[in-house]
Amino acid sequence: MAALDALQAWRALLGEQRVLNDPATLHAYAASTSSCSTRPLAVIRPHSTAEVQQAVRIAAEHSLPLYPLSTGRNWGYGDACAPTDGQVIMDLGGMNRIREADGELAYVVIEPGVTQRQLSDFLRDQQLPLWMDSTGAGPDTSLMGNILERGFGHSPYGNRFQNVAGMEVVLANGELLQTGFGHFPGAANQRVFPYGIGPYIDGIFTQSNMGIVTAAGLWLMPKTAALSHFLCSVAEHAAIAPVIDALRPLRLDGTLRSILHIGNDLRVLSGGTVYPRERAGGALPLPDALRREMRAAAGIGAWTVSGALYGNAAQIAAARSALRKALAPTAAKVRFIDERKLDIADRIAGLLGGSAAGRRLKANVQLGRSLLDMNRGIPNGRFLAGAYWRRRAGLPPDFPEHANPARDNCGMLWVSPILPMRGADLLRLHALAEPIFHEHGFDLFVTFSMINERALGGVLTVAYDKEDEAETQRARHCYRALFDAVMQAGYIPYRVGLQSMPDLDNGDDSYWRVVGRIKGALDPQGLLAPGRYSARGGGRG
Amino acid sequence: MAALDALQAWRALLGEQRVLNDPATLHAYAASTSSCSTRPLAVIRPHSTAEVQQAVRIAAEHSLPLYPLSTGRNWGYGDACAPTDGQVIMDLGGMNRIREADGELAYVVIEPGVTQRQLSDFLRDQQLPLWMDSTGAGPDTSLMGNILERGFGHSPYGNRFQNVAGMEVVLANGELLQTGFGHFPGAANQRVFPYGIGPYIDGIFTQSNMGIVTAAGLWLMPKTAALSHFLCSVAEHAAIAPVIDALRPLRLDGTLRSILHIGNDLRVLSGGTVYPRERAGGALPLPDALRREMRAAAGIGAWTVSGALYGNAAQIAAARSALRKALAPTAAKVRFIDERKLDIADRIAGLLGGSAAGRRLKANVQLGRSLLDMNRGIPNGRFLAGAYWRRRAGLPPDFPEHANPARDNCGMLWVSPILPMRGADLLRLHALAEPIFHEHGFDLFVTFSMINERALGGVLTVAYDKEDEAETQRARHCYRALFDAVMQAGYIPYRVGLQSMPDLDNGDDSYWRVVGRIKGALDPQGLLAPGRYSARGGGRG
Repeated sequence: MAALDALQAWRALLGEQRVLNDPATLHAYAASTSSCSTRPLAVIRPHSTAEVQQAVRIAAEHSLPLYPLSTGRNWGYGDACAPTDGQVIMDLGGMNRIREADGELAYVVIEPGVTQRQLSDFLRDQQLPLWMDSTGAGPDTSLMGNILERGFGHSPYGNRFQNVAGMEVVLANGELLQTGFGHFPGAANQRVFPYGIGPYIDGIFTQSNMGIVTAAGLWLMPKTAALSHFLCSVAEHAAIAPVIDALRPLRLDGTLRSILHIGNDLRVLSGGTVYPRERAGGALPLPDALRREMRAAAGIGAWTVSGALYGNAAQIAAARSALRKALAPTAAKVRFIDERKLDIADRIAGLLGGSAAGRRLKANVQLGRSLLDMNRGIPNGRFLAGAYWRRRAGLPPDFPEHANPARDNCGMLWVSPILPMRGADLLRLHALAEPIFHEHGFDLFVTFSMINERALGGVLTVAYDKEDEAETQRARHCYRALFDAVMQAGYIPYRVGLQSMPDLDNGDDSYWRVVGRIKGALDPQGLLAPGRYSARGGGRG
Repeated sequence: MAALDALQAWRALLGEQRVLNDPATLHAYAASTSSCSTRPLAVIRPHSTAEVQQAVRIAAEHSLPLYPLSTGRNWGYGDACAPTDGQVIMDLGGMNRIREADGELAYVVIEPGVTQRQLSDFLRDQQLPLWMDSTGAGPDTSLMGNILERGFGHSPYGNRFQNVAGMEVVLANGELLQTGFGHFPGAANQRVFPYGIGPYIDGIFTQSNMGIVTAAGLWLMPKTAALSHFLCSVAEHAAIAPVIDALRPLRLDGTLRSILHIGNDLRVLSGGTVYPRERAGGALPLPDALRREMRAAAGIGAWTVSGALYGNAAQIAAARSALRKALAPTAAKVRFIDERKLDIADRIAGLLGGSAAGRRLKANVQLGRSLLDMNRGIPNGRFLAGAYWRRRAGLPPDFPEHANPARDNCGMLWVSPILPMRGADLLRLHALAEPIFHEHGFDLFVTFSMINERALGGVLTVAYDKEDEAETQRARHCYRALFDAVMQAGYIPYRVGLQSMPDLDNGDDSYWRVVGRIKGALDPQGLLAPGRYSARGGGRG
């Protein structure tokens, strides 16, 4: 049998320990926050580019589909699952060298298994004057996987793909490709200029199944002399629209260089607590009175804007003043957080001791530190707490240090539409989405992120109790209705889970035809990640 | 004959006036600043996407290669010439609509024929609060052609390709492709997020022959409340290195958001004068004493750094102070130019009247205004003057308003290596290049531009007298030696002229193989611009 022969060949290449098909391993890789997980045929773990190349050749010889992943923590979008059962997971988590680091030109070269924690610790230990861009997905997630999915973080380098300079890619025939200038022998400029010369092809390896990226140059931001976080909130829902319109010019003109996140009340509340099952009497969605009560207790409004200012003291002062001026005509109150303020608050909290006020202040100081840390690339799992909202057992003991919603059997689906950065679009999308959540008995958790100078990236979370069959069913329907609604409204998502990939191609779309032709040219056998984003091209198209 | 049949079909489609193959037209299109021009079979001029599609289908039917161009002003890199004789030029200069403009989200949608002057005038006439990014190539050049060649301008939007959101592309089979979100019916987010969903393919249509881009969304920068130009210079050659190293952190941390240009003395001098044939007694390179004399008379140093600061008054003040502080330990003197200063200087020049001092001040005011204008997207041809350095007849009467070095029979070849942004790399490249220029009897004109946060884009000009056969021959050899030297040193160029495209592929390079496979998948007949960047793939590969 092809599979047995291939497994034998991989074992000869990688050793018994790195070719696994025992039930426990296959079960672990099938864990998913979604309700449509798939089961792999086996899991192989190459540790070097050469091993990846040889492993791919073995797969090609035996016509076995390979599904590469970095650390497999693509929570909410399919986790470590392949689009179909029976693919062979190529887990690159063990290929985790930081191959190069340059403090002067501000970049590193990383392999797929490098996690946020690892790079963050490395920069600290090597005393490099650089900050990583961090996502809210926690310390154990890979950088590469997120970059290739075109994820976004928090800092001025939050548009992560834009900071990639030079990829190393293993193709479906085992060939090794260097993009940018990397394929010219002795190139001295490979990591300082992504485009190289000739067609710029790096983009085709993002959100795709065209090749296996085994290394990439990643630009990092130099530490700044000062850093200030800011939070601003509005009490009432509709008041967020003028705030968006007031912030847009500052994002456009570079006063706000980092990615701002705008979360609704539940998004903020879920950071510190799970669904109050008893107080709500099991009611879903959360009764309005209780929601307002919780909001008041936490001292938050309907919406909270969270962002950071970077620079020297004078630059930050200028930005603060521009921000205050822009927000003055709106209902938003803005607060600035920096190290000094947090130290003072911490001391006051200490004086207040275990009183309610003291505990609340302490919690706020901790949140403030987490936010400041995120801005300078120290990852924190606490921003994943929303995934646990409906989990009956609440937050696990190793949260947030080792947050892992798939392992913890959380139910979570994400819908991530892109909107023009206008208050009216935010309100329109919200008005479209909230009734769908409520009809299906769910609360709407949503963050809108200013992911570039002109767009909001919405992340709408369907958080559900995976142990409840009926609720799981409802979650699936809610997701589907939501997905259809955002597509219909023209707010196409920037990224989708496996379950929606087939729906992106209506069968008569020139873009997907072109993607299929490129796939066919690079992977005629359809060996790599069949069904990932594009079902066309290759032998399985 | 295929050609006659095709011409007849194109004439039926476009009319007699827009299908030309008379000798004068073919001669005009063959004009080139390089010494290796080619002659087209014919020139066709579609005015709409539908006409482009139909014209492509006619070409495919008759297997005639098509060479699309925007306005054909790719001076120094091949002008309007196809890589080989006998291709049919598809001149898209007449397809010049500005299809859409959005002052709030700060973008326009342009067709290939839109020139810098046209867009600049449009923004002014429509009173849109936006500035275009302008290159130094003058008012009559297209935006699209430069964007697709990944050219760069002067403003914070100077990395032009990075500001493209959504392309419309006609493929070799006549099919129409929309990239980004544009292929989803009713997409509301097409112009605010370039990547769309699925593989990001826009890059493959840059520096390539994969398709004909007939429209693109282009992000523009919002006008800022204030604008300040700065110039700084060093007297001696080696003193530029510490300046680069002092400026790099400011470029990296976003204090300097625009593209800085660092020119040597000749680059600056050539802006106002041509080669002083008589004073130099015909000597080449320019005698050192004369060069120093000219430098002193112009009041410039060995190197001049030119850049701009954008923002409100407080932000510009903070940036100025950071710039002064960073440059304090170097030999560079920094001067700031703004409207107010220029107005004062203009009045003083008026008082000084026609005296030498008055004339010089007047000239400096004019230069200052041109620089400020460039920063806010008002194009000016004066920065093309270097191309005329060796032209016997000097600058033509319609210069700089309608600068056109190809038409004016200037001899010019560009070599454009990318360097890490380090003083040591600049000096190394200079030490490599200058002897090559001198050996061949040429002066080295060079600009290094801080085209992103980590790279210098060098543009080395071989300016030669095209009416002198021997000098033309020497120019060709000089270019070749220079090209080989920068490749050898690992400073691979970001862009090359037609004559060097075949040399980019050593025949055993995975990148060019991949490019060839993609070309083969999208254009199996090899119909579009055969030989442009990649000679592989397609029927002619």
